[in-house]
Formats: sequence, structure tokens, C-alpha cells
Amino acid sequence: MTTATHDSEMTANAAPTGNLEISVSRAELLRELTAAQSVVERKTTIPILSNFLFEATEDGKLTITATDLDQSLRTSCTAKVKKAGACTIPARKLYDYIKLLPEGDISIKLMDNHWVQIRAGRSNTKMVGMARANFPQVPEFPAAGAVKIQVSSLKNMVLKTIFAISNEESRYTLNGALLVLKAESMAMVATDGHRLAHIEKMGEQLDGVQGEKKTLIPRKALGELSGLLANTDAETLDFADDDQTLFFRVGGRVLTSRKLTGQFPNYEAVLPRDNNKFVIVRSEDLMGSIQRVAQFADERSGAIKIRLEQNELKLSSSSTDAGESEDSIETPYNYDPLVVGFNSQYLLDFLKAIGNTGEVRLEFKDAQSAGQMRPEDGNEDVKYRYILMPMRI
Amino acid sequence: MTTATHDSEMTANAAPTGNLEISVSRAELLRELTAAQSVVERKTTIPILSNFLFEATEDGKLTITATDLDQSLRTSCTAKVKKAGACTIPARKLYDYIKLLPEGDISIKLMDNHWVQIRAGRSNTKMVGMARANFPQVPEFPAAGAVKIQVSSLKNMVLKTIFAISNEESRYTLNGALLVLKAESMAMVATDGHRLAHIEKMGEQLDGVQGEKKTLIPRKALGELSGLLANTDAETLDFADDDQTLFFRVGGRVLTSRKLTGQFPNYEAVLPRDNNKFVIVRSEDLMGSIQRVAQFADERSGAIKIRLEQNELKLSSSSTDAGESEDSIETPYNYDPLVVGFNSQYLLDFLKAIGNTGEVRLEFKDAQSAGQMRPEDGNEDVKYRYILMPMRI
Repeated sequence: MTTATHDSEMTANAAPTGNLEISVSRAELLRELTAAQSVVERKTTIPILSNFLFEATEDGKLTITATDLDQSLRTSCTAKVKKAGACTIPARKLYDYIKLLPEGDISIKLMDNHWVQIRAGRSNTKMVGMARANFPQVPEFPAAGAVKIQVSSLKNMVLKTIFAISNEESRYTLNGALLVLKAESMAMVATDGHRLAHIEKMGEQLDGVQGEKKTLIPRKALGELSGLLANTDAETLDFADDDQTLFFRVGGRVLTSRKLTGQFPNYEAVLPRDNNKFVIVRSEDLMGSIQRVAQFADERSGAIKIRLEQNELKLSSSSTDAGESEDSIETPYNYDPLVVGFNSQYLLDFLKAIGNTGEVRLEFKDAQSAGQMRPEDGNEDVKYRYILMPMRI
Repeated sequence: MTTATHDSEMTANAAPTGNLEISVSRAELLRELTAAQSVVERKTTIPILSNFLFEATEDGKLTITATDLDQSLRTSCTAKVKKAGACTIPARKLYDYIKLLPEGDISIKLMDNHWVQIRAGRSNTKMVGMARANFPQVPEFPAAGAVKIQVSSLKNMVLKTIFAISNEESRYTLNGALLVLKAESMAMVATDGHRLAHIEKMGEQLDGVQGEKKTLIPRKALGELSGLLANTDAETLDFADDDQTLFFRVGGRVLTSRKLTGQFPNYEAVLPRDNNKFVIVRSEDLMGSIQRVAQFADERSGAIKIRLEQNELKLSSSSTDAGESEDSIETPYNYDPLVVGFNSQYLLDFLKAIGNTGEVRLEFKDAQSAGQMRPEDGNEDVKYRYILMPMRI
């Protein structure tokens, strides 16, 4: 049997032809298990989903797959393959056990009744697996149509928008961020209806993108993607989709996610056009002031008041239980005075996203209109804006 | 009014004579609040107990008191006292707020209706306090009869025994550790009925102790005491008691604890006398092996099997759900083979308490008798032993 045949058998989810028997470096195995384990649901009612699928091929490759049916992650490392084959192993138990083993080689062998033997040094363990045939089929990366994206650009875009995604399960189309690819730029936008984060990166080169390609990426997939992008040396990733599935290939790892259906809201309509009163403050100062004042905000709403006066930004709050608090920051301001209320946590989320460094620009129109925050960093290539609906205070 | 008069008024828990007004360094205040806040109950049905009592005297001293009725902590720092007086301030809110303030001086002023104003730099906050008269009276350190104890000795004794204290509320006299003071030695012992930790320190000089002074210290007080001992430069502490209360004075801080009543069990009867089979292993090796094997122990009992054979220590476990695991350590052993079961978590607790360094000596008699663990560190001044009841396996 050639390797090619074997590979195609496996992707077709065929029954294993032999009792898997391999030896693999603990460091390499642990690295891949760490990548894959976050996809495994802690609490699943479908037992097979709490297992990893291990597939060893004669070309000396161990492929590890995890899925929760919505998402899957497939990764691999080199192994000494004594017998090609496949097995499934309880993911959490295996991960915890491998973490506790000392550095060195680990032997893994499929025994009778789906038991899997794991040996290393003077340690010998048998775990109860399940039949490989029960493991669900995982979508394959499409043969054509992938777009290459810069890892650093996408990583930054996810970081700057993911926190604004809605937590309300019912607001289905807000449970993800919209990725907008054009031939020479890319953008990402997320909103929960109360605030919206939008980031656009110019000067990209996205071969194969014609016009505008819009893709809604579920929050959970963005979380997994963040992890993959943070732990790779690769400079680019491959992104593709078909009718039902999104695919991200980062280094040797493939993350898939079921698509979110539905229409993302027309966010361009809410981007403020005439916020002509602005103030610039140090992020760190603003963060400190908001954190202090927020302690005395109404617990449910988290609302604090921003008051702009001659060369001064004042923040204040009051709650019947806790008391009242005020903080002020000296900064040039020469427009008409303005008082507007915002959710303090939403303000803090943005400051955290920009790393709480440098300066931030706050732009307002009036107490009834959305405010806008932007990093004052002079970066022309990246346009990052954060829009917040005001609160009655 | 002289300072002395004022002091005695306060210790008599008199109503405040004035509206407290002070200025205090943020660093000093935070240091003392950090010490005091752990005594404050998070969830109390008695509102005043979630407040700190602040008392400022004309000699430039701010005294901070926290109590949960069972325990109290009283600490102090220097302050610029503009008006002597007292007030109470919500402990958690104050602590969180002071943490968020930048370095510098903080002004604290009692206003009408028990409101307290806190100002620092460009920050201005008012918190809702409660009447000082509602704050419960806290016991005073006795004028005579205190024993001086080495901080380092007591700190070590608490660390080596506190984990063996029973968590079962119903086992009232086991909810603490017994401190045994003699003129030239001190010991501490804790047990939950399944394991017992005993440590004795020779070569102490405990002036004023005649014969044997035995004191049962509640677990919660030991926890607070650990914190105080870990954060002091003082070399000795003062320990005293009266009918109802234990007192510990560490530096300028006084911790009090209501006494546990009842008789601590006769622990000397369970100390093994003829455990003549022993083995010596590296703590780190033993910890690693136990952690691995414990993953496959029965979840409820945590039981693992120790098997001693010719020059080998074997650890093993099995559970119907997870599988089975075995680890072995090479080490000189020439007595009769032995198999005995123990709670894996109890074994790990001891290894953590000795810092998982050096070697450890395991001493056994047979499968029905208690095992004993000791650090193999050649320290003649400190005798530390840990006794574990065996489990049926």
C-alpha cells in the first residue's frame, strides 16, 4: 500500500486497517495536544467528542483531530510508526497525563477493546478509548480557492474586534465578526448593538479576491484562531470556505468552523460622520480614571458620565449603595461643553484592546449621538475605530 | 486632652469625639488595608462587619480594625491627623479603590450621615459608611503573660501542619492545630482523622512557659497568622491568651481569634513506633509518579497502591472509567515485599509542604498499619513527621 492510498482512505473516514503502534517525542506530542485540546468540549453529551482521533500513517506522521461538531482542529507531528492505524483517546485525560510525563519518547499502542497503552520511561498506562469508526467526519480543506492572509494582520484584527461580539445567543448574526477582504485591503467588524469595533488594514495583497468577499466568523472560531495565530512561526495562513464551512490553515494545522448564516447588520450606517468635538488623552490616565469611577457606577448598567469642559475631561458616577466618585484629566479642549454617559466596561474594553499605551482620541457630537474612540498613533495603514452608543444618565 | 486619655477612650470603644480628618500615604494605607482585608467576611449578614473601623489619634496614628466576630485584626500606620476621630468605611470598596489610586497622599474626611470623603490628586470620592458606635468591640491584647516566639519557627510549623486540619465542620476539635509550647521547644500538630502532621522544633527559648502549654488554634486564624508572618520584618511575635481569646502580636499588628473549645485527640497514641521497613526516594520523583498514577485513581477515594519490592517502589491505580496506570522508582529496598494503599492527595500534600525538594523517607509496618513520611534532610533541630492511615485497595 502506498502512502497516498493510505492518506485518501483516512480522509474518507475508513476503518483502521491495523492496530496503531507508534513512538513520539513527548515535546512534539504535547505541543500538538495543546493546540487541539481547546476545541474539545468539556461537557458534551456525545462521548466520542471528548476523544482525540489519532491517525498514524506509514510516512511517519501522526495526525491528531478534535471536533465539537461545530468546529474541528486537525494537526500533526512526526512519529516513528511501527504500525499504521487509528484510535481515539480521551482528550482531557491524555493531555493531563502527557503534561505530567518527563521529557523523552512516548510509545502509544492500540490494544483490544479500544484500550490504548501509553508507555514512557518507567510509566505504563492504559486508557479506555472508543472505536475509531464513531469519530465524526471532519471537513477537508478545499483543493482550490484559498486566499493567503498575513498572520500578523489577521491576529491584530481579531484582537481588536473580538471583545465587541455579542454574548446574547439570541442575536444570532451578532455572534461573530465580519471579515471583509478586498484585493488590497482587509477589514474586520464586530458589534453587539451597543458598541462596534471596526479595523481596516490597507496595503495588503490578497491574491484571488475580486471585489469584496464578506465572511461572518463565529466567536468561538475566532477564539481558536487567535490561539493558532499566537502560536505559529508561519507568516501567512490560508483561508477558504465552501457552502457550510470556513477553513483556516495555519502552519500544519487546519481549523474548520461551521458558518454562521444570516445577514450581518449594515454597520456602515452607524459609523459617525460628524463627531467634531474631540479630546486626546493618555490611555493609561483614562484607564485609571475610568476604573476608579466605575467602582461607584450603578452595578447593573455600569454607566459613568463624561463631562467635557474648558481644557478638562471629567468622569463621574454615583450609585445609591456605594457612593459617588469623580476623576478629572487636564487636556486641551475648546469646544462647547458636553455631558454624555457611557458603559464604563465598554470604554475599558477598548483601552485594553489597544494595550493601554499611547494616546487615545475621543470624538463626540452630542449627548444623544454615538461616541467614537481611536488610537492616536499616527498609523496610516491601520484604521481602528470603536463606536459606542451613549447611555441616559 | 492628652494622647494617653484619647487612647484609653478609644480602647474603651467610646463614641468618636470629632469628625475624623486625616491625610495618609497611599502606600502605607494600602499595605495596612491589604493586611486587614482578609479578615473581612465577603458574605456577611451583619452589614457593619463588611466595614473597616478607622480611628485617628492626635499622636499621628491611624488604627484600622477589621473583624468577623470570631477573629479581628488591628493594625496601624502614621497619618497627618487634622482632626482626631473615628469612622467606618466599606472594606472591599475602599480596598479596591485605594489599589486603583496612583502613589501619593490621600485625604480621608468624615462627613455628615457617616459619608466618608476620599480625595487624592484629581480624584474625589464619597463612600457611605456606618456609625462607628455599631462596630463591635474587639478584645485588647492582655497587659501581661505574653510569650515571645520566633517568627521563622512558627511560620514553618504552620506551613507544615495547616493542610492536615479537618475540613469537616462537624469534627469541631479537629478544625484547628494544636500548639504545644515548652520552655525549650515547641511543637504543632494537626489531624483530620485520616492523616496527621506533627512538627517539633528544639532549641527554642520560650521565657515564661512552665511545663507544657497547649493551645488549639482554629484553621482560619492559622491562615491569617500565616499571612501576617509572611509579611513582617519582625523576628519575634507575642502570643497570649485569656479564657476566650487567642492573641498574636506581629510587628504593629494584633490578630485575635476566638478559642476553639474541646479536647484535641490523643495524637501521641497514633504515632507509629515500629515502622521498620523504609525506603528513601527523591521528592520530585515521588511527586511526579504519584501525580501521574493519581489521574487513574478512583475519583471518590483517590486511592493508589504502593508496592515495595526488591530495590523498587511501584505505584499503581485503576478506575473503571479512566483506565489504569503504573509508575516505578528504582531505590534500595531489601525488606519483605509490601503492598499498601493510600490517598494520593494526602501523599501529595506532604510533598508540597516540604517544597518538593530533597529526599523523603517512607516508613511502613504492614498493609494494615499507618505509614509515616519524613523529610530525609538531616535536620536534628526540627522533627517533622506525617502519618497516614492506609486504605483498603
